[in-house]
Amino acid sequence: MATMASSHTFQPLLHRIAAEIESMPVRGRPADYIPALAACDPHRFGMAVAELDGTVYGVGDWRQPFSTQSVSKVFTLALDLALEGDTLWEHVGREPSGNPFNSLVQLEYENGIPRNPFINAGALVVTDRLHTRTGDAAGALLEFLRAESGNAGLAVDKGVAASESAHGDRNAALGHFMASYGNIGNPVPVLLDQYFRQCSIEASCADLALATGFLARHGVRADGTRLMTRSQAKQINAIMLTCGTYDAAGDFAYRVGLPGKSGVGGGIIAVVPGHCTLCVWGPGLDERGNSVTGVAALDRFTTLTGLSVF
Amino acid sequence: MATMASSHTFQPLLHRIAAEIESMPVRGRPADYIPALAACDPHRFGMAVAELDGTVYGVGDWRQPFSTQSVSKVFTLALDLALEGDTLWEHVGREPSGNPFNSLVQLEYENGIPRNPFINAGALVVTDRLHTRTGDAAGALLEFLRAESGNAGLAVDKGVAASESAHGDRNAALGHFMASYGNIGNPVPVLLDQYFRQCSIEASCADLALATGFLARHGVRADGTRLMTRSQAKQINAIMLTCGTYDAAGDFAYRVGLPGKSGVGGGIIAVVPGHCTLCVWGPGLDERGNSVTGVAALDRFTTLTGLSVF
Amino acid sequence: MATMASSHTFQPLLHRIAAEIESMPVRGRPADYIPALAACDPHRFGMAVAELDGTVYGVGDWRQPFSTQSVSKVFTLALDLALEGDTLWEHVGREPSGNPFNSLVQLEYENGIPRNPFINAGALVVTDRLHTRTGDAAGALLEFLRAESGNAGLAVDKGVAASESAHGDRNAALGHFMASYGNIGNPVPVLLDQYFRQCSIEASCADLALATGFLARHGVRADGTRLMTRSQAKQINAIMLTCGTYDAAGDFAYRVGLPGKSGVGGGIIAVVPGHCTLCVWGPGLDERGNSVTGVAALDRFTTLTGLSVF
Amino acid sequence: MATMASSHTFQPLLHRIAAEIESMPVRGRPADYIPALAACDPHRFGMAVAELDGTVYGVGDWRQPFSTQSVSKVFTLALDLALEGDTLWEHVGREPSGNPFNSLVQLEYENGIPRNPFINAGALVVTDRLHTRTGDAAGALLEFLRAESGNAGLAVDKGVAASESAHGDRNAALGHFMASYGNIGNPVPVLLDQYFRQCSIEASCADLALATGFLARHGVRADGTRLMTRSQAKQINAIMLTCGTYDAAGDFAYRVGLPGKSGVGGGIIAVVPGHCTLCVWGPGLDERGNSVTGVAALDRFTTLTGLSVF
Repeated sequence: MATMASSHTFQPLLHRIAAEIESMPVRGRPADYIPALAACDPHRFGMAVAELDGTVYGVGDWRQPFSTQSVSKVFTLALDLALEGDTLWEHVGREPSGNPFNSLVQLEYENGIPRNPFINAGALVVTDRLHTRTGDAAGALLEFLRAESGNAGLAVDKGVAASESAHGDRNAALGHFMASYGNIGNPVPVLLDQYFRQCSIEASCADLALATGFLARHGVRADGTRLMTRSQAKQINAIMLTCGTYDAAGDFAYRVGLPGKSGVGGGIIAVVPGHCTLCVWGPGLDERGNSVTGVAALDRFTTLTGLSVF
Repeated sequence: MATMASSHTFQPLLHRIAAEIESMPVRGRPADYIPALAACDPHRFGMAVAELDGTVYGVGDWRQPFSTQSVSKVFTLALDLALEGDTLWEHVGREPSGNPFNSLVQLEYENGIPRNPFINAGALVVTDRLHTRTGDAAGALLEFLRAESGNAGLAVDKGVAASESAHGDRNAALGHFMASYGNIGNPVPVLLDQYFRQCSIEASCADLALATGFLARHGVRADGTRLMTRSQAKQINAIMLTCGTYDAAGDFAYRVGLPGKSGVGGGIIAVVPGHCTLCVWGPGLDERGNSVTGVAALDRFTTLTGLSVF
Repeated sequence: MATMASSHTFQPLLHRIAAEIESMPVRGRPADYIPALAACDPHRFGMAVAELDGTVYGVGDWRQPFSTQSVSKVFTLALDLALEGDTLWEHVGREPSGNPFNSLVQLEYENGIPRNPFINAGALVVTDRLHTRTGDAAGALLEFLRAESGNAGLAVDKGVAASESAHGDRNAALGHFMASYGNIGNPVPVLLDQYFRQCSIEASCADLALATGFLARHGVRADGTRLMTRSQAKQINAIMLTCGTYDAAGDFAYRVGLPGKSGVGGGIIAVVPGHCTLCVWGPGLDERGNSVTGVAALDRFTTLTGLSVF
Repeated sequence: MATMASSHTFQPLLHRIAAEIESMPVRGRPADYIPALAACDPHRFGMAVAELDGTVYGVGDWRQPFSTQSVSKVFTLALDLALEGDTLWEHVGREPSGNPFNSLVQLEYENGIPRNPFINAGALVVTDRLHTRTGDAAGALLEFLRAESGNAGLAVDKGVAASESAHGDRNAALGHFMASYGNIGNPVPVLLDQYFRQCSIEASCADLALATGFLARHGVRADGTRLMTRSQAKQINAIMLTCGTYDAAGDFAYRVGLPGKSGVGGGIIAVVPGHCTLCVWGPGLDERGNSVTGVAALDRFTTLTGLSVF
């Protein structure tokens, strides 16, 4: 359980962490499968903490927009789960996926039902279902992020989306493969267009820390209305902890000890249930696709504050 | 984060949960691969909660010894990690294993390094290493459990151990397979003997809830001495949450939201860091090998108390 | 090695085999993934033998066109191998694929290089390469089959091709997956269109036995010109024997002992090198996708004539 | 089908092939998992051809005994199949195994039934069954090889057998794994002892070419008695062609075009049904475990004589 930390300590804490990150010799390498990500400077670093009431603290490039990529999967999941409830779980599992090498054989073994909503196959299923319910999954996601962050300027980077589409053969393979099992409702090209647009939303650490707030507030949105039940918010936190950082979920739980979700754009969001939310950004990735400086900063944060769930 | 619950509420709470469990129509089936487990009555049920100071509350068959089976893996891990520290992680991983179907192919793909200490292959490695360090892994484990539970009568059920050995071909295969990669230090038959004895220790809910206390006390034993660092205790909790319930770790995190470890004897231990530890027992298992009534009771416990890590 | 059989025995032999097939109680079930195949009557049966000089003997429905399906893969392979030679083998392997369950994981493990030209993934690669060389793979195939069979009326069944396309998600997945490894040169939708058209060519036992003749004539076409080297013809025979009947290649070699290639339309072609070629048709399939009556008829043929390669 | 070659051409042919092999720059590397094999000189080379009547031609080190290793699997299979007939196929399959990487997952997927008698798992099953029937599988094998080769001095190299046993963890894993499915009848240590002794029989090219004769004589032994039916001999040839050279069966069929079986001692036996049998020996292996000079020599033999089954 969390050790209480007075909120007024966050700003000096962030400065201390940023100073430590500054001196890190190894920073990983940006994702290189599309030019827009490959061009990112691994020395950029930002970190934001949002309290339950919307107060935000930040350091470094915390107001610099970056490509959300898989971080967006958390919000898509939340929107769909809020709309359809438990029937979602008939179409996607909630278990860690083990080695990425096995993703396709598992999909085959389990008849087109992906292991969890955060592997690509699972995120495609969630997007497909949200799109069926809303008629515009990417639009619904953007609207939600704008409302929660208070930043009406959030938008899809169309160049990134086009780039994702041009390098989208593997996701196309996953989409068609699941469609062959009847687990995709929309035409695969429509689904992929929606999916790539979601991944290409640009947002800053400040925006994403605020947008994640509902998970620390047990399901309540920034305006005080309820997005989902307390139990559903707890469920999403559980899935983030067990499946949120690709093939390093165990390692992340071990080092950081918070529900978190990373993206290959270098962003990571994390939740201290009942206390605050965090977002860090550092474009250099480790070999498992997680931000090197981002994980290090969260590790320091939980070590210095004692704010871990364990 | 945990909602505070006054300790004096545990006893009525346990009675309430036991009454609810009593009326559950479905109770699963006992493990049937050895006679001693198959003979267990799925209507037996016990539950114990131990506070940090050693106060124990219980209900039902909470003082009835049962076969600890995989629950013992937590203690073996703790003893070895305390003795050797991080070099252990060069021999066993910390990531969830995904589908059980893939266990062997993963072991092959990863050159004989099991994914985590709680799948059988990983537990064999931990036992092997503890045996090398202590000369008697099962003895060291028994001594630790006796000390922490205050029950000097804890012992190996030799009939169960013999039965495990007689049905031990799959574990023998795992042992030899890892030995072919140089990841086993002792002769495989010696290792298997140690391993089966550990699995065959009998203990009650009261014993195990008490023995788990060091994980809620951040590494401190019942007598106030430190077994391991605060960080190591946190690490074991993280591994329990992500890998502790076979192929249902995600589901367990989702429903219960506590670090836990189950065994096919029907026992489950769980940790509320900084607050208390729990042990439930119900011999009927679900199709993934976890106690049906045990998971249900823990689910009720966290729902009624709010004592979840999420 | 073959025992010599006088050619003039083929006609009575075919009648004898057809009579035996007539009395078979079990006939399998037609493929049911598209309506055109599902509608086939499993009691239809045809068989043709073509001698090296183009003399054809037949029995039953030997002049009835049926859907060639995977039988066409042999000819596509031959045309591409004749055009490009050994560079083809940098893009597709020549080894049996083992269990179909593993097809995708093998493709992943081997970086998008399919195991052989007769599994779907491998046939897609061959079609892609032939299409790049000819600008119209399906057209080139049709032209070849018409010339060798002397049947200018051979054509694609457009209804079947459309049906294949409508149920083509799994092949689309394979195509995109290999494209993600750079092993597909044409746009995946273009490739799929070509592929489905080839599978949908209709031809009779007589047509296909004649068209296969170049493999018995060590690479020489019906008109006496050389399609490929003697060594290449031998190579295709070897691949047919080891990979030609899905997951039953070992069983087919064991029972029939000839290079053969089956299709889910119920056709099977087979080669007695230096002697003759065969084609059988029976729409009822066994659980591995091979014609029940077709395999039985070939088994009887080699048993009665001694014309096996072993 | 085979082109006839006058027998009297074999001796000059063997000299020509040996001369070509002499000048090969690349010779592979001896197996290095046990010292006795690692010490072999890759420049050693021998080749023998045995006619149906027992006349033997040879060149180079054709009378030098070497470790038969997996070549012995053919004879064990023949002895067991002759004794028990088709019930064997309920315990081991007849299909190529695909990628070696998948061996364990396939064994798991197919409930402990190995894919074919020539992968290690399958050979263990065959040895287990022969041992049950004869009480001494290795003894029965040795007796058969002595009788067919006319060499009463054939024996197990006990040093090699001990070395195999000391490095036998992977085979022990396979044995225990299949035992867990009930597919092994003898205690695993007994089985392994039998298995390692068979692999460690020493024999020369002359011995093995003669001992293989029954497969070219359609099941008839050297003394004119029948070991097995004509159909069974054909079946073994078919299995050799599709499964005889590890993960290179397709390539071997493609290059050599004869039923063959290799061993990591550098030996390969091959069968020209109805004509003759061959054995080559060259200790240097390619990356798939087959003799580099052996495969090359057989390739030249079939190319120069036209004696291929295709």
